[in-house]
Amino acid sequence: MEITAKSIYTDVEKIRETSPLIHNITNYVVMNITANALLAIGASPVMAHAEEEVEEMTGIARALVINIGTLSESWVRAMFLAVKRAGDLGIPAILDPVGAGATSYRTKTCHDLIDAVAPAVIRGNASEIMALAMGETKTKGVDSSDSSVAALEAAKLLNKNAGSTVCVSGEIDYVVGGESVITIENGHPMMGKVTGLGCTATALCGAFAAVNPSFPAAAAGAMAVMGIAGEIAAESSKGPASMQVDFLDALFGLSEDDLTNRIRIGGQK
Amino acid sequence: MEITAKSIYTDVEKIRETSPLIHNITNYVVMNITANALLAIGASPVMAHAEEEVEEMTGIARALVINIGTLSESWVRAMFLAVKRAGDLGIPAILDPVGAGATSYRTKTCHDLIDAVAPAVIRGNASEIMALAMGETKTKGVDSSDSSVAALEAAKLLNKNAGSTVCVSGEIDYVVGGESVITIENGHPMMGKVTGLGCTATALCGAFAAVNPSFPAAAAGAMAVMGIAGEIAAESSKGPASMQVDFLDALFGLSEDDLTNRIRIGGQK
Amino acid sequence: MEITAKSIYTDVEKIRETSPLIHNITNYVVMNITANALLAIGASPVMAHAEEEVEEMTGIARALVINIGTLSESWVRAMFLAVKRAGDLGIPAILDPVGAGATSYRTKTCHDLIDAVAPAVIRGNASEIMALAMGETKTKGVDSSDSSVAALEAAKLLNKNAGSTVCVSGEIDYVVGGESVITIENGHPMMGKVTGLGCTATALCGAFAAVNPSFPAAAAGAMAVMGIAGEIAAESSKGPASMQVDFLDALFGLSEDDLTNRIRIGGQK
Repeated sequence: MEITAKSIYTDVEKIRETSPLIHNITNYVVMNITANALLAIGASPVMAHAEEEVEEMTGIARALVINIGTLSESWVRAMFLAVKRAGDLGIPAILDPVGAGATSYRTKTCHDLIDAVAPAVIRGNASEIMALAMGETKTKGVDSSDSSVAALEAAKLLNKNAGSTVCVSGEIDYVVGGESVITIENGHPMMGKVTGLGCTATALCGAFAAVNPSFPAAAAGAMAVMGIAGEIAAESSKGPASMQVDFLDALFGLSEDDLTNRIRIGGQK
Repeated sequence: MEITAKSIYTDVEKIRETSPLIHNITNYVVMNITANALLAIGASPVMAHAEEEVEEMTGIARALVINIGTLSESWVRAMFLAVKRAGDLGIPAILDPVGAGATSYRTKTCHDLIDAVAPAVIRGNASEIMALAMGETKTKGVDSSDSSVAALEAAKLLNKNAGSTVCVSGEIDYVVGGESVITIENGHPMMGKVTGLGCTATALCGAFAAVNPSFPAAAAGAMAVMGIAGEIAAESSKGPASMQVDFLDALFGLSEDDLTNRIRIGGQK
Repeated sequence: MEITAKSIYTDVEKIRETSPLIHNITNYVVMNITANALLAIGASPVMAHAEEEVEEMTGIARALVINIGTLSESWVRAMFLAVKRAGDLGIPAILDPVGAGATSYRTKTCHDLIDAVAPAVIRGNASEIMALAMGETKTKGVDSSDSSVAALEAAKLLNKNAGSTVCVSGEIDYVVGGESVITIENGHPMMGKVTGLGCTATALCGAFAAVNPSFPAAAAGAMAVMGIAGEIAAESSKGPASMQVDFLDALFGLSEDDLTNRIRIGGQK
């Protein structure tokens, strides 16, 4: 089924009507903006990381978001408990491999999490997705002078190996899943100056996956909504901090017209 | 003594003049807004959760705020050390049972904390207060088709059993303590779209309890100030993120006239 | 070499051009504003605290920022691993002794960190720097009825004993290092009502130290830029929360003219 402004807005309405509980095990830097973004789109966020409770919390959630941005030993143990519980119950799990490739601890933790239970969606930037894809093939097959091409090739490889829908965000966002590669060309350069917007995109993938069982469609919807809210925010903001405020306000007020008038989606077969 | 705009503003002035140190052991999501709200009202916030130092920190504070929103084992141990120290020294402790009822770990931790040292004030939303009250009575006595009535009944039960002033926040906030039930009807629906405003209300209970030994009066003051700052913010904000900014600015600038003109307090005997 | 608006702006341009990676082991309250401030000035922030990865992360960074604001056992162990790695590699480490003097755990941790590897820069407020200087001398030599004079004397003592450049911030900021005492008189009183601006100043010391091997010049540049962005923000903000937003926007947009027209630097020999 084709993904359009109308189909994405239908998902937004479902999120607003059902307020799905999204269980986040995420990093300290972005917890506040992640929670506020989930509230703004209409979902209901909860953060919980204790080994004593993560399985119970995942069990009442509609999606699980795992983000390794400030990982440590006990948090990683909790992530495994939560993804296994999500796997058992058929709850979609979304993985943000923040900083994969920067340290071996991050790269290895991501590989182990993916091996334990393939996420519904893996969303990262080009270098993170390339680090995960290369680690699996032990080759330099994704090297390229064109980083956007390299990122897309890495996303395809990771999708093939892990079975997850893979979303690599950048100037053009690519969503690789099933038989298709979807491109989203919304967004604004100032978004790169606001900490946590990548993590926020991942959290929104969770909100969309909670209401749409097609994970490529869920990831594409999240990326379109992110980019369009960023474009709206850029029109009124004076810098990255007012951009963050205006972005969340735009997410909250997002209308079907905003989607219809601004969406730049392509690449669907 | 009746609680009025004037009596509440007297407390605000005391907070601004004495800048009481408020020791918070709170959750990761809200630490920043909590600290900023305490600064905005005139208090001096400190966050500390290490078992090595919490007793010493509580010992120099004028109130202790415990919030279980992202609890884990070592944090819970620190919470017990801190509440016992507060109990020994007569420092008021405020408890926010975030997510009580959602997992058994949260519900049990709250019960154990309350059993260890009865908090001066327990502040939560309807479902949290109902979870704590039901857990103590092992009955369904608080079930009701009218959730506001059910919440009030739960607050009365928890107040009777724990001995704490109990504040249940919602469209109408109820403060149950001593012989009276105080109602506060300030606030704005957009406040529910900003993460951490409930936790912020709890932190402000700490600031008021630091300057007013009547805990029902302290809780009522905190809730009135929260609601009124929210109303002022709603007049200028375009969405939940600008609401958060405008709320903190309003808290900082709160005048006696704001309180006098807007307060909707009732239910006092 | 004299520190001027021009020399500071040259450092800002270097930060913007090279986007140095700044590794932060900092407190939960300020992680978001710290990351956003580093992005706004042009640097590239990363937060990582796991013992499994801190040495690897420090090894790829251009500066290390240690902030003990919400310290605990495993974080302190990671701080030691990171500062030793920084010492081995000649990467500048900046220390923010948040709350030193408030608990013995904080004071002792700072002393132990300083003894392990002398930081390039120690930045704190008057009471923190005095607590560290007194702890080393075991005297009351820094007592004074004039707190600004006392703070400067403490900074000189700590500089002499530790060998670090010491920056004590207040109405007048003092930077003590080498043979000189630099004063910066920029800033605005409302900055004290925004949580984490002291910690942000420390993080910016890291960004400047990443591009300028003269640590007194780096600290003075960071403090001047902080104060000037605060002055610009104060012209448009209505309270502490809009001050935070406007401050980050001002940091992002900072021009050479802003520095030239506003800088109030003195005390250089």
